[in-house]
Amino acid sequence: MSNTIRMYDLAGADPARRFSPYCWRTHMALKHKQLEFECLPWRFTDTEAIAPFYAGGGPALVPVLTDGEVSVTDSWNIAEYLEEAYPGKPGLFDGEAGKRHARFLKHWVETQVHLPITRMIVLDIHERLHEKDKAYFRASREKRLGQPLEEVVADRQARQVEFLKILAPLRNVVKEQPYLSGEAPAYGDYVVFGAFQWARCTSGFDVLAGDEPVSAWRERMLGLFDGYAAGFVAG
Amino acid sequence: MSNTIRMYDLAGADPARRFSPYCWRTHMALKHKQLEFECLPWRFTDTEAIAPFYAGGGPALVPVLTDGEVSVTDSWNIAEYLEEAYPGKPGLFDGEAGKRHARFLKHWVETQVHLPITRMIVLDIHERLHEKDKAYFRASREKRLGQPLEEVVADRQARQVEFLKILAPLRNVVKEQPYLSGEAPAYGDYVVFGAFQWARCTSGFDVLAGDEPVSAWRERMLGLFDGYAAGFVAG
Repeated sequence: MSNTIRMYDLAGADPARRFSPYCWRTHMALKHKQLEFECLPWRFTDTEAIAPFYAGGGPALVPVLTDGEVSVTDSWNIAEYLEEAYPGKPGLFDGEAGKRHARFLKHWVETQVHLPITRMIVLDIHERLHEKDKAYFRASREKRLGQPLEEVVADRQARQVEFLKILAPLRNVVKEQPYLSGEAPAYGDYVVFGAFQWARCTSGFDVLAGDEPVSAWRERMLGLFDGYAAGFVAG
Repeated sequence: MSNTIRMYDLAGADPARRFSPYCWRTHMALKHKQLEFECLPWRFTDTEAIAPFYAGGGPALVPVLTDGEVSVTDSWNIAEYLEEAYPGKPGLFDGEAGKRHARFLKHWVETQVHLPITRMIVLDIHERLHEKDKAYFRASREKRLGQPLEEVVADRQARQVEFLKILAPLRNVVKEQPYLSGEAPAYGDYVVFGAFQWARCTSGFDVLAGDEPVSAWRERMLGLFDGYAAGFVAG
């Protein structure tokens, strides 16, 4: 009998709205590895629920994965855990070279892509949060961004032009091959997809502005595992 | 008896000044594969010298590699050629997954890194060119950049702050491991290094502004193959 795998998963006012870019990496990794799992909807202010997993210190963040007696925090650590714990299942990384590729993509998306997306959708996220999360979210994001959320997003149409330039390496690769990882998707694709699924699940604003090659890749990602990611609440 | 491998290699007024970022990929690839080769200094206006290799059309660009009866244009094609033609020599890509990593890095450096470097060093390049190249270079670059070269570089100190943000994924990876490709360098490192060696070999302006992790990686790259890249005319 196998353990039940559970993930604490960031949710909005609608518990079916799941939108953390980091949790989406784990969703896709679990599907890739053909593992059964349950998701526990979690809100930003539910810090006590996951505090036991951060007994060593550090901010309490999702995803957190539990697998029987084992718990793992941080989406990258979770991917490495799944790879080691379930070696008989499809590989997430395509070897050590593939893992290094995924690691660069992780740093690329986190340092180049996440902030510009935040600046386009942060007000939409705020509107879709559970009431109990709104004050925390507004205060922390306005402090980080240095502006009221309404001002942050006011010029998002203009910013989008610059954002699309940042996506050039992604665009150029998915013009050449179906996935960042080649003919089949792997963890590097999930890391990058997480950013776009985050936007898609919190906002009606299409951050890709219809950009054809990247949108087509996103559609391929949404269609994986019988349309798993496409089935979640969006917009 | 083996053929002599030759590369047409972009040079400045001083024929020992070699600075094309694309040619530097090939320099490093040839050293990595432990192959003997000769470099033929080439200038932008020496179009006739390499025109025969572009009989099928397209602009005449370096590097061009000849290996006996074989000729190959485009630095990526050259890397693939070397890998196939010399399978007994050290591998450039670390397998197909490593090749995909290098391919993303190629698109990343070409779309995100090259233009900001150009905007810092283009006037320095101009000053170091052979006299016969200067008019062509100024006209083509001023058309591309939409400004006189002097104006392009005027605010380079200010631009450098933004440039260092673009380097975050590179910085974060080389904080974690010695090379983009892991414990040992591979073609992906050479692709990115080409951009920094181009700047180093044409300008006294340190585009890295002393950034410690990236500068340390660049030093490791300069030290490879008994300090091969460090031995060229710089500044």
